[in-house]
Amino acid sequence: MSVGQPIECNAAVAYAPNKPLTIEKIIVEAPKVDEIRVKVLKSALCHTDAFTLSGEDNEWPASDFKPVILGHEAVGVIESVGPEVTDLSIGDHVIMLYTAECGECKFCIDNRTNLCIKVRSTQGKGVMPDGTTRFKNLKGEPIYHFMGCSAFSEYTVVSKHSAVKINKEFNLEQAALLGCGVATGFGAAGYKGIGAAKKGNQITKGSSVAVFGLGAVGCSVLEGAKAAGAKKIIAIDTNDNKEAWAKEFGATDFVNPLKLKEGENIVSKLVSMSDDGFGIDFTYDCTGNVNVMNDALMASARGTGISTVIGVAPAGAQISVRPFYLIVGRTWTGIAYGNIKGKSEMTELIQASDSGDLSLDKYVTHRREFTDINTAFEDLHSGDCLRTVFNY
Amino acid sequence: MSVGQPIECNAAVAYAPNKPLTIEKIIVEAPKVDEIRVKVLKSALCHTDAFTLSGEDNEWPASDFKPVILGHEAVGVIESVGPEVTDLSIGDHVIMLYTAECGECKFCIDNRTNLCIKVRSTQGKGVMPDGTTRFKNLKGEPIYHFMGCSAFSEYTVVSKHSAVKINKEFNLEQAALLGCGVATGFGAAGYKGIGAAKKGNQITKGSSVAVFGLGAVGCSVLEGAKAAGAKKIIAIDTNDNKEAWAKEFGATDFVNPLKLKEGENIVSKLVSMSDDGFGIDFTYDCTGNVNVMNDALMASARGTGISTVIGVAPAGAQISVRPFYLIVGRTWTGIAYGNIKGKSEMTELIQASDSGDLSLDKYVTHRREFTDINTAFEDLHSGDCLRTVFNY
Ligand SMILES: [Zn+2]
Ligand SMILES: [Zn+2]
Ligand SMILES: [Zn+2]
Ligand SMILES: [Zn+2]
Repeated sequence: MSVGQPIECNAAVAYAPNKPLTIEKIIVEAPKVDEIRVKVLKSALCHTDAFTLSGEDNEWPASDFKPVILGHEAVGVIESVGPEVTDLSIGDHVIMLYTAECGECKFCIDNRTNLCIKVRSTQGKGVMPDGTTRFKNLKGEPIYHFMGCSAFSEYTVVSKHSAVKINKEFNLEQAALLGCGVATGFGAAGYKGIGAAKKGNQITKGSSVAVFGLGAVGCSVLEGAKAAGAKKIIAIDTNDNKEAWAKEFGATDFVNPLKLKEGENIVSKLVSMSDDGFGIDFTYDCTGNVNVMNDALMASARGTGISTVIGVAPAGAQISVRPFYLIVGRTWTGIAYGNIKGKSEMTELIQASDSGDLSLDKYVTHRREFTDINTAFEDLHSGDCLRTVFNY
Repeated sequence: MSVGQPIECNAAVAYAPNKPLTIEKIIVEAPKVDEIRVKVLKSALCHTDAFTLSGEDNEWPASDFKPVILGHEAVGVIESVGPEVTDLSIGDHVIMLYTAECGECKFCIDNRTNLCIKVRSTQGKGVMPDGTTRFKNLKGEPIYHFMGCSAFSEYTVVSKHSAVKINKEFNLEQAALLGCGVATGFGAAGYKGIGAAKKGNQITKGSSVAVFGLGAVGCSVLEGAKAAGAKKIIAIDTNDNKEAWAKEFGATDFVNPLKLKEGENIVSKLVSMSDDGFGIDFTYDCTGNVNVMNDALMASARGTGISTVIGVAPAGAQISVRPFYLIVGRTWTGIAYGNIKGKSEMTELIQASDSGDLSLDKYVTHRREFTDINTAFEDLHSGDCLRTVFNY
């Protein structure tokens, strides 16, 4: 029986930026107050993991890169619980939440936002709320946590606020995806009142939508737009291979911004594609490129358009437009984890999957053994990968 | 009887950028289809008039400056009406609307926006909807219209969509102010569901508000915030003389960004003044300075803050921030004429004046004869002027 004891298990440790992860045995301490220890069952690789590994993440810079266990899209089974954990039990299946929901802080109480602050400051530093780490390598050196999840380990410890219990019947691969990208895009679309809709940003029936960047996030925005009954759903990507893909997820049109006619740019092209020539009702940046964010705003509709920034930009990059674009009634906003409150709204996401509105199976394009994780970083850049899911 | 005939009257004509207006006799043609001719009773000088006179306005550039009659905050009495004008009659008192409301276009039908397009394209070119001008000087040279109003003439011709009838008992000086600045700020605050509130941007009871720039627009945002029951209303201006003024209009606090402590900047100062340290619920730029617009966004609250751009920036200037400020849930938007639909919502503004929520009398700081208009441009920059109102 491991409860209360340290566990030795395999993990993938990032010791340095832009270097392969080291697969090695580590020690995972028992959970402390308000914590749970989880045996990871499935996880997926997300661009944010790759971004942090690149050393460009402000919070985990190359200049001060401490050993860390990445991974934040994951599902697992609770192996043990620390003191004062009452709503989660050993044996529960849980999706990890990099955006926690404590249910009590200013942000949890406010229906308009999901930015719970309960574990935020320590999470950003790679430690548990008591300021320490539960991971060490066999030399006894501390290894840090990542996004409150650190799923690239056979066992991990997370805050009780950073995990939501789900039905044991729910497909594990698909559950893992709900921990990040797919929920982000679907929430951004404001599906049936969840996510961004709680702030008035909900794709409406008959509207026009433009989605820049067709990874898992972009494709799930497309699905959200389709479910909302949007009339024109324009998918935009520089890779033509994404066209068939985009249409499977609900796009009615595909535009490759590198292949426009002489005299056109992506903004004029999109505006010309809108019914009335005044622009697109809802636009989304899922690229993290600030120039694309600017274009997405400028292509949104005069008077009423809403442009949502979803992609994370590199350190120092700035968005920049003439304020006239706002004066004439456009709205520029952004979102993290699709404005989904991870505990309160997970049921709706699972129902969306059950109903077929969210086709989670389609996002699993690659499967690998967890120990083959370094190869998965190559999948990400291959252009035909939405998600690589790991078996443990 | 002048009906149907040209009228000769005094006007103030801008012949060149940055030169005094020429007070001279001009000819005002009779109104054509869908037009009305108005005897101007009171008007006020606004920064936008001065901006266009400066030659920095993209739509009326110094490099192609055609003779124009400025003026867009005004009230008058209808002298005659052209064919097919049914809802306005000779003798009606009307406020001129630089933001027209035709009631039929896509934008008029949409409750979320006030950007009627009926007369927009010709208005921007300084002509009436048929493409011609109703003004000429005594040499027979055409003189152009401005913002669909051209109030700095004893008589003017405007579209029937660019004027709203008001009760003849309503104070004329105060009515003139409802044509621009004061309505802009009060509408931006979303007073009782009008203006910006139609898009979900309404100052709420108990909230925090920051207003940058304390001209007529800024002061009317303060009044709107007070009427909404905001708890903390922070007025920001580089002129300390504005403090007493701001407090009269409802500010609870005043900050001069040029007089902060070592190590403080206006963003950190405002964030520190918020109850919970997460920023200000509603911020407004009323300066037209893009750096101020950036600060206003950054000072708005994580998760839920809304920052509204009201001021008009010089040609070419761009707003610019790290997109992270949006990703964590802030909303950046902008507004013209306070998102007020000039015909549908004028009654609410007049009721706000009647109830005392909007103290229009306080904005009339200077009065001059219309022919003394060139002196009024100096008033604007004097720092103790909200509005100079002209007698005709
Ligand atoms: Zn919370
Ligand atoms: Zn992710
Ligand atoms: Zn209209
Ligand atoms: Zn004005």
